[in-house]
Amino acid sequence: MGCASSFTDTDERTIRGVLDAQAAAWNEGDIEAFMEGYERSDALVFTSGAQIRRGFDETLARYRARYVDTDGMGTLGLSVLEVRPLPPDAALVMGRYTLSDTPHAGGGLFTLVFQRGPSGWRVIHDHTSAEPPTR
Amino acid sequence: MGCASSFTDTDERTIRGVLDAQAAAWNEGDIEAFMEGYERSDALVFTSGAQIRRGFDETLARYRARYVDTDGMGTLGLSVLEVRPLPPDAALVMGRYTLSDTPHAGGGLFTLVFQRGPSGWRVIHDHTSAEPPTR
Repeated sequence: MGCASSFTDTDERTIRGVLDAQAAAWNEGDIEAFMEGYERSDALVFTSGAQIRRGFDETLARYRARYVDTDGMGTLGLSVLEVRPLPPDAALVMGRYTLSDTPHAGGGLFTLVFQRGPSGWRVIHDHTSAEPPTR
Repeated sequence: MGCASSFTDTDERTIRGVLDAQAAAWNEGDIEAFMEGYERSDALVFTSGAQIRRGFDETLARYRARYVDTDGMGTLGLSVLEVRPLPPDAALVMGRYTLSDTPHAGGGLFTLVFQRGPSGWRVIHDHTSAEPPTR
Protein backbone atom coordinates (compact mmCIF):
# COMPACT_ATOMS: atom_id res chain seq x y z
CA MET A 1 0.00 0.00 0.00
CA GLY A 2 0.99 3.62 -0.17
CA CYS A 3 2.96 5.51 -2.71
CA ALA A 4 5.29 2.72 -3.74
CA SER A 5 2.39 0.86 -5.33
CA SER A 6 0.24 1.70 -8.31
CA PHE A 7 -2.77 0.16 -10.00
CA THR A 8 -1.72 -2.50 -12.51
CA ASP A 9 -3.31 -4.96 -14.91
CA THR A 10 -2.70 -7.58 -12.25
CA ASP A 11 -4.86 -5.58 -9.85
CA GLU A 12 -7.70 -5.49 -12.37
CA ARG A 13 -7.40 -9.24 -12.91
CA THR A 14 -7.42 -9.79 -9.16
CA ILE A 15 -10.56 -7.71 -8.75
CA ARG A 16 -12.33 -9.56 -11.57
CA GLY A 17 -11.19 -12.78 -9.92
CA VAL A 18 -12.82 -11.76 -6.63
CA LEU A 19 -16.12 -11.31 -8.47
CA ASP A 20 -15.75 -14.60 -10.34
CA ALA A 21 -15.09 -16.34 -7.03
CA GLN A 22 -18.13 -14.69 -5.49
CA ALA A 23 -20.41 -15.88 -8.28
CA ALA A 24 -18.96 -19.40 -8.09
CA ALA A 25 -19.44 -19.50 -4.31
CA TRP A 26 -23.02 -18.27 -4.61
CA ASN A 27 -23.80 -20.91 -7.21
CA GLU A 28 -22.43 -23.59 -4.88
CA GLY A 29 -24.74 -22.30 -2.16
CA ASP A 30 -21.80 -21.18 -0.02
CA ILE A 31 -22.78 -17.82 1.39
CA GLU A 32 -19.72 -17.58 3.67
CA ALA A 33 -17.39 -18.03 0.69
CA PHE A 34 -19.45 -15.48 -1.28
CA MET A 35 -18.98 -13.00 1.54
CA GLU A 36 -15.19 -13.39 1.34
CA GLY A 37 -15.32 -10.76 -1.40
CA TYR A 38 -16.44 -8.13 1.11
CA GLU A 39 -14.29 -6.25 3.59
CA ARG A 40 -14.68 -7.91 6.98
CA SER A 41 -15.34 -4.65 8.75
CA ASP A 42 -18.06 -2.65 10.47
CA ALA A 43 -17.34 0.04 7.87
CA LEU A 44 -18.72 -2.09 5.02
CA VAL A 45 -21.77 -0.50 3.40
CA PHE A 46 -24.28 -2.46 1.35
CA THR A 47 -27.21 -0.57 -0.07
CA SER A 48 -29.99 -1.96 -2.17
CA GLY A 49 -33.49 -0.69 -2.81
CA ALA A 50 -32.84 2.48 -0.79
CA GLN A 51 -32.06 0.46 2.35
CA ILE A 52 -28.65 0.63 3.97
CA ARG A 53 -26.94 -2.25 5.72
CA ARG A 54 -23.78 -1.44 7.61
CA GLY A 55 -21.06 -3.89 8.56
CA PHE A 56 -19.97 -7.32 7.43
CA ASP A 57 -21.94 -9.16 10.10
CA GLU A 58 -25.25 -7.45 9.33
CA THR A 59 -24.75 -8.00 5.61
CA LEU A 60 -24.08 -11.70 6.14
CA ALA A 61 -27.06 -12.03 8.47
CA ARG A 62 -29.37 -10.39 5.94
CA TYR A 63 -28.13 -12.62 3.13
CA ARG A 64 -28.60 -15.68 5.33
CA ALA A 65 -32.11 -14.66 6.31
CA ARG A 66 -33.14 -13.85 2.76
CA TYR A 67 -31.64 -16.78 0.90
CA VAL A 68 -30.22 -19.58 2.98
CA ASP A 69 -32.91 -19.85 5.62
CA THR A 70 -35.78 -19.45 3.22
CA ASP A 71 -36.01 -20.07 -0.47
CA GLY A 72 -32.59 -20.97 -1.78
CA MET A 73 -29.94 -18.88 -3.43
CA GLY A 74 -30.58 -19.66 -7.09
CA THR A 75 -28.09 -18.92 -9.84
CA LEU A 76 -26.09 -15.70 -9.87
CA GLY A 77 -24.44 -14.21 -12.95
CA LEU A 78 -22.14 -11.18 -12.75
CA SER A 79 -21.06 -9.19 -15.77
CA VAL A 80 -18.44 -6.47 -15.32
CA LEU A 81 -19.06 -3.41 -17.49
CA GLU A 82 -16.27 -1.21 -16.23
CA VAL A 83 -13.28 -1.20 -13.89
CA ARG A 84 -12.00 2.27 -13.13
CA PRO A 85 -8.80 2.54 -11.11
CA LEU A 86 -8.66 5.01 -8.23
CA PRO A 87 -4.94 4.61 -7.69
CA PRO A 88 -3.10 3.35 -5.91
CA ASP A 89 -5.37 1.31 -3.63
CA ALA A 90 -8.98 1.59 -4.76
CA ALA A 91 -11.11 0.87 -7.81
CA LEU A 92 -14.66 1.41 -8.97
CA VAL A 93 -16.47 -1.49 -10.63
CA MET A 94 -19.83 -1.28 -12.38
CA GLY A 95 -21.68 -4.28 -13.66
CA ARG A 96 -24.93 -6.11 -14.16
CA TYR A 97 -26.20 -9.08 -12.20
CA THR A 98 -28.85 -11.63 -12.91
CA LEU A 99 -30.36 -13.99 -10.37
CA SER A 100 -32.50 -16.90 -11.45
CA ASP A 101 -33.93 -20.18 -10.13
CA THR A 102 -35.15 -18.59 -6.91
CA PRO A 103 -38.27 -16.71 -5.81
CA HIS A 104 -35.95 -13.68 -5.51
CA ALA A 105 -35.07 -13.87 -9.21
CA GLY A 106 -34.29 -10.59 -10.95
CA GLY A 107 -31.44 -8.48 -12.13
CA GLY A 108 -29.99 -5.03 -12.12
CA LEU A 109 -26.91 -2.91 -11.79
CA PHE A 110 -24.21 -2.72 -9.18
CA THR A 111 -21.56 -0.17 -8.33
CA LEU A 112 -18.79 -1.57 -6.15
CA VAL A 113 -15.86 0.20 -4.58
CA PHE A 114 -12.91 -2.07 -3.96
CA GLN A 115 -10.03 -1.20 -1.68
CA ARG A 116 -6.70 -2.92 -1.30
CA GLY A 117 -6.22 -3.82 2.36
CA PRO A 118 -4.29 -6.31 4.45
CA SER A 119 -6.36 -9.19 2.98
CA GLY A 120 -6.05 -7.97 -0.60
CA TRP A 121 -8.74 -6.41 -2.76
CA ARG A 122 -12.13 -6.41 -1.06
CA VAL A 123 -15.48 -4.66 -1.63
CA ILE A 124 -15.94 -1.83 0.87
CA HIS A 125 -19.15 -0.41 -0.62
CA ASP A 126 -21.90 -2.07 -2.68
CA HIS A 127 -24.75 -0.10 -4.20
CA THR A 128 -27.11 -2.41 -6.04
CA SER A 129 -30.26 -1.41 -7.93
CA ALA A 130 -32.77 -3.96 -9.06
CA GLU A 131 -34.38 -3.36 -12.41
CA PRO A 132 -38.05 -2.61 -12.16
CA PRO A 133 -40.14 -5.75 -12.79
CA THR A 134 -41.16 -6.01 -16.44
CA ARG A 135 -44.81 -6.82 -16.27
CA MET B 1 -2.09 15.07 -7.28
CA GLY B 2 0.04 12.02 -6.79
CA CYS B 3 1.96 10.85 -3.84
CA ALA B 4 2.84 14.24 -2.41
CA SER B 5 -0.81 14.79 -1.50
CA SER B 6 -3.07 13.05 0.95
CA PHE B 7 -6.74 13.29 1.85
CA THR B 8 -7.33 16.03 4.39
CA ASP B 9 -10.21 17.62 6.27
CA THR B 10 -10.03 20.39 3.70
CA ASP B 11 -10.70 17.83 0.97
CA GLU B 12 -13.79 16.60 2.79
CA ARG B 13 -15.03 20.16 3.23
CA THR B 14 -14.41 20.83 -0.46
CA ILE B 15 -16.39 17.75 -1.46
CA ARG B 16 -19.29 18.70 0.79
CA GLY B 17 -19.08 22.19 -0.70
CA VAL B 18 -19.44 20.78 -4.21
CA LEU B 19 -22.66 19.05 -3.16
CA ASP B 20 -23.97 22.17 -1.40
CA ALA B 21 -23.27 24.18 -4.55
CA GLN B 22 -25.07 21.57 -6.66
CA ALA B 23 -28.19 21.72 -4.51
CA ALA B 24 -28.14 25.53 -4.52
CA ALA B 25 -27.76 25.60 -8.31
CA TRP B 26 -30.59 23.12 -8.77
CA ASN B 27 -32.86 25.17 -6.54
CA GLU B 28 -32.10 28.26 -8.61
CA GLY B 29 -33.09 26.32 -11.72
CA ASP B 30 -29.55 26.46 -13.11
CA ILE B 31 -28.87 23.03 -14.54
CA GLU B 32 -25.51 24.05 -16.06
CA ALA B 33 -24.24 25.21 -12.66
CA PHE B 34 -25.59 22.00 -11.09
CA MET B 35 -23.62 19.99 -13.62
CA GLU B 36 -20.39 21.76 -12.58
CA GLY B 37 -20.15 19.14 -9.84
CA TYR B 38 -19.61 16.40 -12.42
CA GLU B 39 -16.43 15.57 -14.26
CA ARG B 40 -16.63 17.13 -17.74
CA SER B 41 -15.61 13.92 -19.46
CA ASP B 42 -16.93 11.14 -21.64
CA ALA B 43 -15.88 8.79 -18.83
CA LEU B 44 -18.55 10.13 -16.47
CA VAL B 45 -21.08 7.46 -15.50
CA PHE B 46 -24.53 8.26 -14.16
CA THR B 47 -26.80 5.37 -13.36
CA SER B 48 -30.29 5.53 -11.99
CA GLY B 49 -33.11 3.02 -12.11
CA ALA B 50 -30.88 0.41 -13.77
CA GLN B 51 -30.23 2.72 -16.75
CA ILE B 52 -26.72 3.88 -17.56
CA ARG B 53 -25.85 7.27 -19.00
CA ARG B 54 -22.28 7.77 -20.10
CA GLY B 55 -20.54 11.07 -20.53
CA PHE B 56 -21.08 14.61 -19.33
CA ASP B 57 -22.94 15.71 -22.45
CA GLU B 58 -25.45 12.86 -22.36
CA THR B 59 -26.04 13.39 -18.64
CA LEU B 60 -26.69 17.09 -19.17
CA ALA B 61 -28.97 16.39 -22.13
CA ARG B 62 -31.01 13.90 -20.12
CA TYR B 63 -31.35 16.31 -17.20
CA ARG B 64 -32.43 19.07 -19.59
CA ALA B 65 -34.98 16.86 -21.29
CA ARG B 66 -36.40 15.57 -18.03
CA TYR B 67 -36.57 18.76 -16.00
CA VAL B 68 -35.86 21.99 -17.82
CA ASP B 69 -37.78 21.37 -21.02
CA THR B 70 -40.78 19.83 -19.33
CA ASP B 71 -42.05 20.18 -15.82
CA GLY B 72 -39.57 22.21 -13.80
CA MET B 73 -36.79 21.17 -11.51
CA GLY B 74 -38.49 21.49 -8.13
CA THR B 75 -36.59 21.62 -4.86
CA LEU B 76 -33.60 19.38 -4.23
CA GLY B 77 -32.25 18.48 -0.81
CA LEU B 78 -29.01 16.53 -0.35
CA SER B 79 -27.97 14.95 2.93
CA VAL B 80 -24.52 13.42 3.20
CA LEU B 81 -24.43 10.24 5.30
CA GLU B 82 -20.80 9.29 4.81
CA VAL B 83 -17.59 10.50 3.21
CA ARG B 84 -14.97 7.78 2.92
CA PRO B 85 -11.54 8.80 1.67
CA LEU B 86 -9.84 6.68 -1.00
CA PRO B 87 -6.50 8.46 -0.70
CA PRO B 88 -4.92 10.36 -2.09
CA ASP B 89 -7.20 11.54 -4.89
CA ALA B 90 -10.61 9.90 -4.59
CA ALA B 91 -13.49 9.64 -2.14
CA LEU B 92 -16.75 7.78 -1.77
CA VAL B 93 -19.84 9.73 -0.70
CA MET B 94 -23.17 8.21 0.26
CA GLY B 95 -26.25 10.26 0.97
CA ARG B 96 -29.96 10.73 0.63
CA TYR B 97 -31.76 13.10 -1.69
CA THR B 98 -35.27 14.46 -1.71
CA LEU B 99 -36.92 16.19 -4.63
CA SER B 100 -40.18 18.06 -4.20
CA ASP B 101 -42.38 20.61 -5.97
CA THR B 102 -42.16 18.82 -9.29
CA PRO B 103 -44.03 15.98 -10.98
CA HIS B 104 -40.74 14.04 -10.62
CA ALA B 105 -40.86 14.38 -6.82
CA GLY B 106 -39.34 11.56 -4.81
CA GLY B 107 -36.25 10.60 -2.93
CA GLY B 108 -33.67 7.94 -2.44
CA LEU B 109 -30.03 7.12 -1.98
CA PHE B 110 -26.94 8.07 -3.91
CA THR B 111 -23.42 6.72 -4.02
CA LEU B 112 -20.95 9.13 -5.59
CA VAL B 113 -17.29 8.65 -6.37
CA PHE B 114 -15.33 11.88 -6.40
CA GLN B 115 -11.91 12.22 -7.95
CA ARG B 116 -9.44 15.09 -7.64
CA GLY B 117 -8.53 16.24 -11.13
CA PRO B 118 -7.24 19.36 -12.85
CA SER B 119 -10.50 21.19 -12.01
CA GLY B 120 -10.56 20.03 -8.40
CA TRP B 121 -12.91 17.50 -6.83
CA ARG B 122 -15.58 16.32 -9.24
CA VAL B 123 -18.07 13.43 -9.37
CA ILE B 124 -16.88 10.75 -11.78
CA HIS B 125 -19.59 8.17 -11.00
CA ASP B 126 -23.14 8.61 -9.69
CA HIS B 127 -25.34 5.66 -8.77
CA THR B 128 -28.73 6.85 -7.60
CA SER B 129 -31.62 4.67 -6.43
CA ALA B 130 -35.09 6.06 -6.01
CA GLU B 131 -37.09 4.77 -3.08
CA PRO B 132 -40.13 2.78 -4.10
CA PRO B 133 -43.23 5.01 -4.11
CA THR B 134 -45.12 4.89 -0.81
CA ARG B 135 -48.77 4.82 -1.69
